[in-house]
Formats: sequence, structure tokens, C-alpha cells
Amino acid sequence: MELEKRLLDGDKRACARLISMVENNNKEAISLIKKLYKHTGNAHVIGITGPPGGGKSTLTDKLVKSLRDEGKKVGIIAVDPTSPFTGGSILGDRIRMNDLSLDPGVFIRSMGTRGHLGGLSKATQGAVKILDIYGCDYIFIETVGVGQSEVDIVRTADTVLMIMVPGLGDDIQAIKAGTMEIGDVFAVNKSDLFGASKTAREIKTMLEMNHNMDRIPPVMQVTALKNEGIKELLNEIKGHMEYLKENDRLNKRRESNARAEIINLIEEEILSLILRKNESVGVLDDISQKVALRNMDPYTAKDEILRAIDL
Amino acid sequence: MELEKRLLDGDKRACARLISMVENNNKEAISLIKKLYKHTGNAHVIGITGPPGGGKSTLTDKLVKSLRDEGKKVGIIAVDPTSPFTGGSILGDRIRMNDLSLDPGVFIRSMGTRGHLGGLSKATQGAVKILDIYGCDYIFIETVGVGQSEVDIVRTADTVLMIMVPGLGDDIQAIKAGTMEIGDVFAVNKSDLFGASKTAREIKTMLEMNHNMDRIPPVMQVTALKNEGIKELLNEIKGHMEYLKENDRLNKRRESNARAEIINLIEEEILSLILRKNESVGVLDDISQKVALRNMDPYTAKDEILRAIDL
Repeated sequence: MELEKRLLDGDKRACARLISMVENNNKEAISLIKKLYKHTGNAHVIGITGPPGGGKSTLTDKLVKSLRDEGKKVGIIAVDPTSPFTGGSILGDRIRMNDLSLDPGVFIRSMGTRGHLGGLSKATQGAVKILDIYGCDYIFIETVGVGQSEVDIVRTADTVLMIMVPGLGDDIQAIKAGTMEIGDVFAVNKSDLFGASKTAREIKTMLEMNHNMDRIPPVMQVTALKNEGIKELLNEIKGHMEYLKENDRLNKRRESNARAEIINLIEEEILSLILRKNESVGVLDDISQKVALRNMDPYTAKDEILRAIDL
Repeated sequence: MELEKRLLDGDKRACARLISMVENNNKEAISLIKKLYKHTGNAHVIGITGPPGGGKSTLTDKLVKSLRDEGKKVGIIAVDPTSPFTGGSILGDRIRMNDLSLDPGVFIRSMGTRGHLGGLSKATQGAVKILDIYGCDYIFIETVGVGQSEVDIVRTADTVLMIMVPGLGDDIQAIKAGTMEIGDVFAVNKSDLFGASKTAREIKTMLEMNHNMDRIPPVMQVTALKNEGIKELLNEIKGHMEYLKENDRLNKRRESNARAEIINLIEEEILSLILRKNESVGVLDDISQKVALRNMDPYTAKDEILRAIDL
């Protein structure tokens, strides 16, 4: 197949085309990933997340520029909420209007929540594989928001970079509680603002309280807009990969990521089976109506549908 | 069964006990919901969400107090991220130390993300049903964060109240894009702050641009801390229920919510089947290892496991 050869040769257009195909759940693209799966696993995959207003995209851009100075090939997947009002992903269009998008050594793609359940995670992970085969040394997955599904997407990375900022308001404790455990490296961005050292200290204290960890994640202070602390942060990210490569930790990590990915693929498949069955005989519609009218409870409904899809 | 009678009689302790049982996925509690499901559907279920720092819990408390003045019976489920560091849900303990928790006409429960996939949504929806049988006139589901799974939980409500605040920073556009379409009523909280009217106007403009809606959601300005605008907001929330009751809209809404709930229950069941199979023969562990080592691709892994669980 021509696309296969072009992807392995590092053809950017072929890469873009295949990622679009994966987004559309195209069978040919999935077959190609299956065939070339042995060519994956070389890239260092970095997930970036944190609360809204944290400056994730600016920080990602600076990290990428630093890697470009080293001659590395980089991919960025920005996971954005999509608005049905505008029909597109607002954020992606807004943030990436910079010189990175003109750099032939950088591949950038925004992915929106397309509405189909479980689909975004599948598309993101497919895109990571294609970028890996394409030859990226580093792949960034950047998500907006602090919700569980964003966390699920980001934790499929080798290294999770958690971005915090000083003075996030009342909910900072809650944000920390929800995301603290998934960070491998922490960055307090906008460290030129008042309270940055205090925030960094608080995070350190919380991390040190956790005796289950065999490695306490570093907490770095950076100011992405002024390009301050970027090199040091990048060194910590690379350092985390070195750490993983000791004592088979990288394999363990990737095993647990594979586990999550497989479960996600299974859920998506079951869902598509149900929807297909509904299209032919309306089983889900009928049963949902009964539940809404209180003629059947949802637990019985679940059993009936599992019987009906006849997996 | 004694618990059944006590719940139907409006016994608060029985209610609390049953919600804990549902959280622990207790079969007896599920059976009881199945049996008493016909007693649900009477409460007006209100989902409250919005970005961190929006003052959701304060606003919820004021709305609840206003309903209590009318003599209504109210339930609150606060969905919190749980930290493995502290072992409990930080937010729930922090915010509810007020007079509401002493009011016999108010039932408050915090629910944390317990770690098992899909479980939080199931527990929340089970708790809503119990509060409904218990006799609540209004049930609030309050979530922190703007992520997809929080949105999924909140949209199971009859009415979704979206909270915004002035000056949320750069990511406000993204937040709006991701959550705009699920709000039935909008509140700009902290409206004593600079920029509140502008934020309200922006939201109105975005909502009016959406020609798909047969009803443009109201945008209210409130200051929860000063108890300003609460009555008016509550009227809009009640107005939304009146709107739903016209032309069979409430049934349609509940049908689509039932649909989402059933799908969630199915996903959870499939997952528990896989995990049970893994416990006996390690099928998921083995296959994840192969995928991590690039000896099998995740799509083939999915097919193998679906064959192995033999649904």
C-alpha cells in the first residue's frame, strides 16, 4: 500500500491523511496500524494536563521549541472540546497560529470531542501510534480540563506533566486531589505571579506525604511566556524516561496503559454493537422509553439489551 | 424488608444506609431500587456544573435554602474527586460544614471517584433514585470540573444549571465551547465582580447564535455569597421544568437520559466480566503484556478478549 510506504518514509501528508482516517474510524487505517504496530514504542509520549487557565499550550510550545533546537522530531495532539455552535474546535484554531505550525519537524493536530462515546480516546491513541510510526521522537498529548476522561487520555502517556498555576481559587484543593496521583512531573507555570513559590511548596508537601511512591515527582517553577525554566523542566521530563527504563518500569507502565486501551476498545465495540442492533430493530429506543415511563428499571433494561445484542 | 418500608416512610437513616450500599455496589440495594423503581420520577433533578472556582457549592446551598423556605424536601449529591493521599473526599468535608447539614429536610452526600471505571456514574444515579423514593422534591447533583465524565453525570438531570464567573482567564472560550450546549439555565455567579455583565452578554450572544434550539436558555446574574438573584434563578429553574412538561418534552428528556444510563450500566457489566475472567485465568494481564512488548496490537487484543469473556 502506498500510504504505508510513505508513512514509514516520514511523509507528513501521508501522516496527516492517516490520522484523519483514524479519526473517522476508517478500517484501512486500523489495518495499517495493526500491520505496523511493531514500529511503535520508540517515541517518548508525554501527556500534559492541568486546570483551565494554566497556560498548557504556551508551555507545550516552548518545550517543543527546545526539542527542535536539539533536532528532535515532534508530534502534538491537542485534545479540545468541540462546540456544535461553531462546528469546529475553537481552541485548536486559536492557539496554534504560530511558527511551530510552519516547522517541517513538527506535526500538530487538534482533536475535538466528536460526540461518539469512547471515540476520542480511540482516535487519540490511534494518532499517537501513527506519529510513532511516522518517526516522532517525542509526542505530546495536551488536554484542556481536569475531568476524568481527560485524565484517562493523558495517563496513556509514558510521562504525565501536570501544570499548576498560583492562585486558582477555591477549587485548587479539589483539583489537586483529583490529579495529584497521575503526575510524574509537576510544573507551576506563571511563576512570576505572586504566590508561585507557596503553590510549589504546597504541592511538594502533598507529594511527600504520599508514602506509596517509590519516586517523588519533581515540582518545577516555570514562566512559559518568558521562556524561563523550560530547559530544566525538559530535563526532568527526560529524567523520568531514564527512571522508567531502569528495572523494567517502562514495560510495566506500558502494560498498564495497554490494559486501559484494550478495555476502552472493548467498550467502544460493545457500544457500536448496541447501536447497530438499535438501528435494525430499535431495541435501545424501545427499552429506554419503557425506563423513562417507569415500566422497566434500568438494571433490568441492561440485562435485556445484553441478551438482545447476542455478542 | 425493613429498609424498604423505612425508605418509603422517609426515614433518613435508611436513606443514608441504602446510598452507602449502592456505592458499594450491593446487590440487595440494587434489588430494592428495581422493586421500587415505579416510585421514582417525582423529583425535579437538577445538575450543577461549571469551571473550578465558580462557587458551585455556595450557590447550591442558597438555592436549597430558598427551597427549604417553601417547605420542600431536598437532596444534594456532591460529586468530588477523591485523593488517595487523604483517603477521603476533600471537598465534601470542607464545604458542607454549615447549617444545611443539620436540617432534617435536607439530605447531603458527597461521592468520590472510587477508582473503579464507570462506578461513579452508576453510584450517583443509584443515589438519585433512592432520594427520589425517599421523597425528595428536588435533587441536586453538583460536580467539580469541566471534564466529559462530569458532564455525563450532570446531563442525566432534568435541568442542567451551568455556572460561569467573570474573568476566568484564557480558557474561558474552551470551557464555553465544551459546556455551552448542555446548559438549560445559565448563572453568572460573583456578579459583583468587574466584567460580570460582559460575561453574561457574551454567553447570551453565543446562545442566540445557535439556531438549533427551540428554547434559548436564560442567563442570570447572581452573587451567591450575598444571596443576590437566587429567587430569580430558582424561578428560571422551575420554569425549565414547566417547559419540559409541555408537549411530552420531559418524557423525551428522560428517555434520552435512560438511554445513557443503560449504556453506562452495560459498559460497567462488561468490564466486570473481563476483570472476573482475568482474576481466574489472567487473560487481560497476559494480553496487555503482549501489547506492551509489541507482540500483539491492541485491536487484535480487543478481539481476543471479547472471544475469551464469552459473554
